[in-house]
Amino acid sequence: MRKGEISKAVIRRLPRYYRYLGELLQNGVVRISSKELSERMKVTASQIRQDLNNFGGFGQQGYGYNVEYLHEEIGKILGLDVTHNMIIIGAGNLGQALANYNFEKVGFHLIGIFDINPRFEGVSVRGIAIQMLDTLEDFLSEHKVDVVTLTVPKRPAVDLAHHLVDLGIKAIWNFAPTDLNLSEDVCVKNVHLNESLMTLSYEYRAKHSGEARDE
Amino acid sequence: MRKGEISKAVIRRLPRYYRYLGELLQNGVVRISSKELSERMKVTASQIRQDLNNFGGFGQQGYGYNVEYLHEEIGKILGLDVTHNMIIIGAGNLGQALANYNFEKVGFHLIGIFDINPRFEGVSVRGIAIQMLDTLEDFLSEHKVDVVTLTVPKRPAVDLAHHLVDLGIKAIWNFAPTDLNLSEDVCVKNVHLNESLMTLSYEYRAKHSGEARDE
Repeated sequence: MRKGEISKAVIRRLPRYYRYLGELLQNGVVRISSKELSERMKVTASQIRQDLNNFGGFGQQGYGYNVEYLHEEIGKILGLDVTHNMIIIGAGNLGQALANYNFEKVGFHLIGIFDINPRFEGVSVRGIAIQMLDTLEDFLSEHKVDVVTLTVPKRPAVDLAHHLVDLGIKAIWNFAPTDLNLSEDVCVKNVHLNESLMTLSYEYRAKHSGEARDE
Repeated sequence: MRKGEISKAVIRRLPRYYRYLGELLQNGVVRISSKELSERMKVTASQIRQDLNNFGGFGQQGYGYNVEYLHEEIGKILGLDVTHNMIIIGAGNLGQALANYNFEKVGFHLIGIFDINPRFEGVSVRGIAIQMLDTLEDFLSEHKVDVVTLTVPKRPAVDLAHHLVDLGIKAIWNFAPTDLNLSEDVCVKNVHLNESLMTLSYEYRAKHSGEARDE
């Protein structure tokens, strides 16, 4: 890791800084103190300073942060100054929904959609024709693909992920409800929707157990 | 909070335990030691014991865990033994993709889909007719809704969320790329897809910066 020992918790918070700074920028704000930023983001000013100090700090005592500069620098830390080519494997509802998302604005450029189901042959999403999965190897030999979004069911996901790694893929955005267990040098980010709902369910019970329905 | 001081990190791990135990159960495994479970889940046995001890512990020294019992108990902790009625507001691609998901198996029962766009009038997803948002208040007065899934754009999301809270909603699963800033007694679980991709982008750069393309 080039950046040394930055904790995952800090990394998880960076996109939120990026989002708030982007909004400030849109609203024409040039400079902001950690106190003002802290009030907007509802985190302590000291957490903001600590988080940003992981990357060398970006503020001058008494002057606050230059919004445009900080936005750009956090973008660089997040790797958003580089365009990543992405494909989606799994053209079901979720895959198609993601294909329609505008991930280009965070530097992810969708260049292909794949599925095994022949009913998708000839179907296009945002101008990108869904291709059959058996053409993937040829596609990968002709195109540089940085990230694969995996929106396939649990059962094929693990084997498919290992196959992708054999084909040279180094990053997977995984929506399949399973761990992929790939080698350490492969980046995997899981989005487990079921599990997100379960934590909401936990919190709901914890906060409102007294009001539970008895039907 | 009924359960006292359980940390968010533990809560975030519970659904993964639930998933692994569910798979073991399906495979007919009756009993498992923390060591075996640890090898499967790739976390330390001591973390498993610590996590489960937050809820009183479920194992007997030397006997391991009863898989079915532990699965059921974690399910209860997560509130999965209660059915939650859910509606989706925002019938775009993502909203429809989520409507097609089978969240019933974790206890979330979809009873309505809403949008403001008249082009959805008469459209059904999984047998549920998309309704116009101006009928929401009537709907809420006739149906108990526990959770609202919010798949609307950023701009209307915050006002809409506050309106939902005024109407008595206590839990929101938020896919809009914004913080909702609701009162403390409302449960909000954010799924910020852009930000998930950004952390993948960060990790990719950290691991593969030496191999960056120079096109």
